[in-house]
Amino acid sequence: MRKYRIGVVGAGGAVGQEMIRVLERSGIPVEDLRLMATERSAGRKINFRGKEYTIEVTDPAKFDGLDVALFSAGAGPSRELAPLAAEKGVVVIDNSKAWRMEPEIPLIVPEVNGQVLTGKERIIANPNCSTIQMVAVLKPLHDAATIKRVVVTTFQAVSGSGHKAIQELDEQIKAYAQGDEMENHVYPHRIAFNVLPHIDRFDETGYTAEEWKMVKETEKIIDPKIKVTATTVRVPVFRGHSEAVNIETKKKLTPDAAREILAKAPGVVVMDDPAGNIYPMPILASGKDETFVGRIREDFSIENGLHLWIVADNLLKGAATNAVQIAEYLVNKDLL
Amino acid sequence: MRKYRIGVVGAGGAVGQEMIRVLERSGIPVEDLRLMATERSAGRKINFRGKEYTIEVTDPAKFDGLDVALFSAGAGPSRELAPLAAEKGVVVIDNSKAWRMEPEIPLIVPEVNGQVLTGKERIIANPNCSTIQMVAVLKPLHDAATIKRVVVTTFQAVSGSGHKAIQELDEQIKAYAQGDEMENHVYPHRIAFNVLPHIDRFDETGYTAEEWKMVKETEKIIDPKIKVTATTVRVPVFRGHSEAVNIETKKKLTPDAAREILAKAPGVVVMDDPAGNIYPMPILASGKDETFVGRIREDFSIENGLHLWIVADNLLKGAATNAVQIAEYLVNKDLL
Repeated sequence: MRKYRIGVVGAGGAVGQEMIRVLERSGIPVEDLRLMATERSAGRKINFRGKEYTIEVTDPAKFDGLDVALFSAGAGPSRELAPLAAEKGVVVIDNSKAWRMEPEIPLIVPEVNGQVLTGKERIIANPNCSTIQMVAVLKPLHDAATIKRVVVTTFQAVSGSGHKAIQELDEQIKAYAQGDEMENHVYPHRIAFNVLPHIDRFDETGYTAEEWKMVKETEKIIDPKIKVTATTVRVPVFRGHSEAVNIETKKKLTPDAAREILAKAPGVVVMDDPAGNIYPMPILASGKDETFVGRIREDFSIENGLHLWIVADNLLKGAATNAVQIAEYLVNKDLL
Repeated sequence: MRKYRIGVVGAGGAVGQEMIRVLERSGIPVEDLRLMATERSAGRKINFRGKEYTIEVTDPAKFDGLDVALFSAGAGPSRELAPLAAEKGVVVIDNSKAWRMEPEIPLIVPEVNGQVLTGKERIIANPNCSTIQMVAVLKPLHDAATIKRVVVTTFQAVSGSGHKAIQELDEQIKAYAQGDEMENHVYPHRIAFNVLPHIDRFDETGYTAEEWKMVKETEKIIDPKIKVTATTVRVPVFRGHSEAVNIETKKKLTPDAAREILAKAPGVVVMDDPAGNIYPMPILASGKDETFVGRIREDFSIENGLHLWIVADNLLKGAATNAVQIAEYLVNKDLL
């Protein structure tokens, strides 16, 4: 059985750390693992399948001979380093926004559009966290009933902003508990006991980059004819993005029909028994690789409308799990 | 100048307490104040405009001679007691859901539909918190451009569930800070670091009563032709409900035109400078009587669409402030 040499770039970050753990529990045979990060994380030792590895400072020379490099080092480093790795024949699976909207770069959620991969790609983009969980649920519904329009509102966890944001919420909460003042440095306003309708930068349309990602990435991954509009909001949750998703379809889709379709969808778990207080929540999705959907109900304000409530772990299916699943797809289809 | 005899029923609750404070800072001349609650709160002393009042156990005999009774005692007590007060000529302004959808009972946000009041009503219903702040913003836009459809997703504070829920979030947070287990009694699941897509009871359509309130109350207050659909969600915020509101209008309304209209709307504050990180948030709306709106932007997924982000203090404009404003309206129009 072939074994693979895999690199993780950004191995010290919130997503990078998860990439190592997801890779460990994946079915991918690993011959060599090279963990790279900035100087801040260099020297840290990581146990992987019973062997100890040390995080080293990122260096293009270390890309030599790798089959795959999982990147989660931010858009700047990715723009610089991914082409260097690609030149050396490494397949880069990149979690940043650097390459997602490049026309020649595939943007992949394996169970949704893995089939576009040919094996010739050297850079493959991992979509934004809030997009991945939405398209995982919408694709099978689109195949069945053709989605015309999506109105989505998100409830996004602070771990989407990395370790420092997790620490900021934790510190604010502890300050509150002690009766101290809550300070903010990562976010422009306090996040504890508050919600911020502001993720990533605003542009001249009044939208944030996060909102545009949901619009443009959904078009690229599923169908350019789907009209998406989004409001993305940060909430004081550590882990797990939630989304209220309203869809309008061409063909009528009853909640029961949608449930039946989604029950068969790969990577999707239907959790929908409101009478029993059962619906997806961040505390249930946290630590899980799947995308959870519930509160599936008719929208009576239009002819063919449906509401969905979609929750996933933003560091897992929203990032690390999806990236590793892309690698697994390449391995399983013998595209490496 | 005429002075009024005013009762507060449910004076020990989260909303009742705010009713007393809002009444205190209102322009209504008060001759007598009768504070009533359950035995749990009876005996508590309340300072009002420099005089001390004692909360007494609710008793219909105490309604005698009142001009107005502000009720916030829940739907059960309201169904029983409001008619008794009304029989004695008292004008009941009721904050529960008991009377809101009764066809002959007016459901009032003064600046939106105060003009329906004739002075003959003996029971006037205060709308649900999440409805009030939405209709305060939507009405002037409807007048200008005719709203066809509304898709709203809410982020609702725990104070909407009363004192016990405020305490539950506080205790969970303190348990977390001390490394203890977080327990839940009020909500079916933990609310700290979580979001619950569940407010009030579910019915057979999969909607919660809270979601139906937003649909039906908006129709009753503004226009039965407006199609509303809602997803209501509890978030770990103490005070201040936030709403992502997507509207489709008959006539085109640009974000600039909407801002201009809303800048003139009574009780509404436009807070919309994303480049300066200025937008409504619970921590800004908390303790304020106004409704705040920002993130006003075009929805590019339909021809005439607009996004709005609406925040208000759920205990004030969402409850106590609106109830007292109804009383003020009656006083100012000489309808008592």
